[in-house]
Amino acid sequence: MTSSVTHDEVVAAAGRIAGVAVRTPLVRSDALDALTGARVWLKAENLQRTGSFKFRGAYNRLSAIAADQRGAGVVAFSSGNHAQGVALAARLLGMPATIVMPSDAPSIKVERTRGHGAEVVFYDRLTEDRDAIATAIAAGRGAVVVPPFNDRHVIAGQGTAGLEAVSDLAAMGVAADLALVCCGGGGLASGFAVGSQLPVTAVEPQNWDDVTRSLAGDAIVPVTDPQPTRCDALQTLRMSELTFATLRSHGAVGHVVSEAEVARAVAFAFRELKLVVEPGGSVALAAALAGRIDLAGKTVLVVLSGGNVEAGVFAACLAEAG
Amino acid sequence: MTSSVTHDEVVAAAGRIAGVAVRTPLVRSDALDALTGARVWLKAENLQRTGSFKFRGAYNRLSAIAADQRGAGVVAFSSGNHAQGVALAARLLGMPATIVMPSDAPSIKVERTRGHGAEVVFYDRLTEDRDAIATAIAAGRGAVVVPPFNDRHVIAGQGTAGLEAVSDLAAMGVAADLALVCCGGGGLASGFAVGSQLPVTAVEPQNWDDVTRSLAGDAIVPVTDPQPTRCDALQTLRMSELTFATLRSHGAVGHVVSEAEVARAVAFAFRELKLVVEPGGSVALAAALAGRIDLAGKTVLVVLSGGNVEAGVFAACLAEAG
Repeated sequence: MTSSVTHDEVVAAAGRIAGVAVRTPLVRSDALDALTGARVWLKAENLQRTGSFKFRGAYNRLSAIAADQRGAGVVAFSSGNHAQGVALAARLLGMPATIVMPSDAPSIKVERTRGHGAEVVFYDRLTEDRDAIATAIAAGRGAVVVPPFNDRHVIAGQGTAGLEAVSDLAAMGVAADLALVCCGGGGLASGFAVGSQLPVTAVEPQNWDDVTRSLAGDAIVPVTDPQPTRCDALQTLRMSELTFATLRSHGAVGHVVSEAEVARAVAFAFRELKLVVEPGGSVALAAALAGRIDLAGKTVLVVLSGGNVEAGVFAACLAEAG
Repeated sequence: MTSSVTHDEVVAAAGRIAGVAVRTPLVRSDALDALTGARVWLKAENLQRTGSFKFRGAYNRLSAIAADQRGAGVVAFSSGNHAQGVALAARLLGMPATIVMPSDAPSIKVERTRGHGAEVVFYDRLTEDRDAIATAIAAGRGAVVVPPFNDRHVIAGQGTAGLEAVSDLAAMGVAADLALVCCGGGGLASGFAVGSQLPVTAVEPQNWDDVTRSLAGDAIVPVTDPQPTRCDALQTLRMSELTFATLRSHGAVGHVVSEAEVARAVAFAFRELKLVVEPGGSVALAAALAGRIDLAGKTVLVVLSGGNVEAGVFAACLAEAG
């Protein structure tokens, strides 16, 4: 049986990323508190290096590779944010990086991955198996494959966001009651549950609710009928044994938001928070705003997980939300 | 002769706003450092309450009004950000507020000012004197007029941003060489010079370069041929004796950026910083990016002074910058 990632693993990760990753600020908003009836603190991981939390897990994973094995480099498959995190971590640690990306990934994410010095190899999301492509490339070079969420070091690294958030709240004399966390494969949500030791609600976009359904039942349920979503960062078909075990052992539950609720959250962050949040990075905020979770009277941590969004998509969200 | 605002006045202001204003974060960007050759720290005042630094000065001014005089309320004239700052400060201190705004002020700023419970009175920017209107309203009620920059308490309040920035840098073992500060009437720029004790470059949009020309000469020079600008927050025709005296005694100089450079800075903040910055709030960043000030090898503080921008204007800046 797969065992949950531990708090000690998150604490060790925090030591490795200290001074390299940004200790992102907690921000709050009078308007958000008024709308929710809660005291909401937003962990602004869109202000993390590479524009998302993914740098935390990537740097923690890569720094765990022994110095004499770094020369062969790393290979990752990713729709974008994990790719950038791995690419920057590799550059900082002096390692070559190859990223296997879907051919329909947002161009901003492709450009940025290359900008960090990584080689990009494309695959077709509908007909090819990115896992097999990455494994084959890595085998040919003796490189290490860095999965986006099915890895203890990656999850522990993401968990440092939770550790920081509760520590920064404690310094203000505040204790949160729960956390709302954006969720694709569950790497951030599971790490956050471990690092924060808070009840976590993992928030997914509609039609990509595999984690919500898996946690509601007793086994991993994959997405079988994938639909288009503006949350490109959260298009994960199946969570892993590790994220499932970790989320379940911490009593996490899932929650689903609509595409329209996502657009409203992106617009709210623009208008009220003055933060650029990508659609996939705004689902937890969308859940807080949508009002189906009763937050009244509670102190709530909400993660804004990334800000890598193309200008056209961003403008469309603002226009749709009015 | 008008005497400069003092460091003691800024320190006193910091005590009054503590726990009420946001101690805004300093953010940095690998991309910005690479482009400038400098170590740049951005003071993110767009994350301040009401979306701009103006809350600092407004709260400091209003809290200096004796308790038995607060019932008559305050009157302010403002193109928007100062209005919101005064409106929120008045609400927090239980005072009625009336704001005299130009009839062409961005609707987002009008709505927000009303949202903080203030009464809004419009005037025509081209034919009416806002000063006279505000003075007449205040005289009829026994209210206090809160000017946007010609006031020691207002300037001292804005200066707390500079005090915080150098203090937060010092805690990281960093000392800045200079600061680039957005400038309309000079309230923030002069306060920042006092609070930070750094050489300040006050940055203005083209055609609104009265501070640049005044500091280059030896007397206040007004804008005589005002032109349209997307920097609505910086449309000030004439700095005050107080901001002039304070900036001059601190050796500040002016600098001008073009409308195209402003659009590029707004787009850079969107793409690289994940921050929403309004055109007027991005002029200091625009100066850093434009490259006419030699920043190579220096440690530079850059103020992002506000984020209250309408979606259409923001989208237009992103589109123009490509």
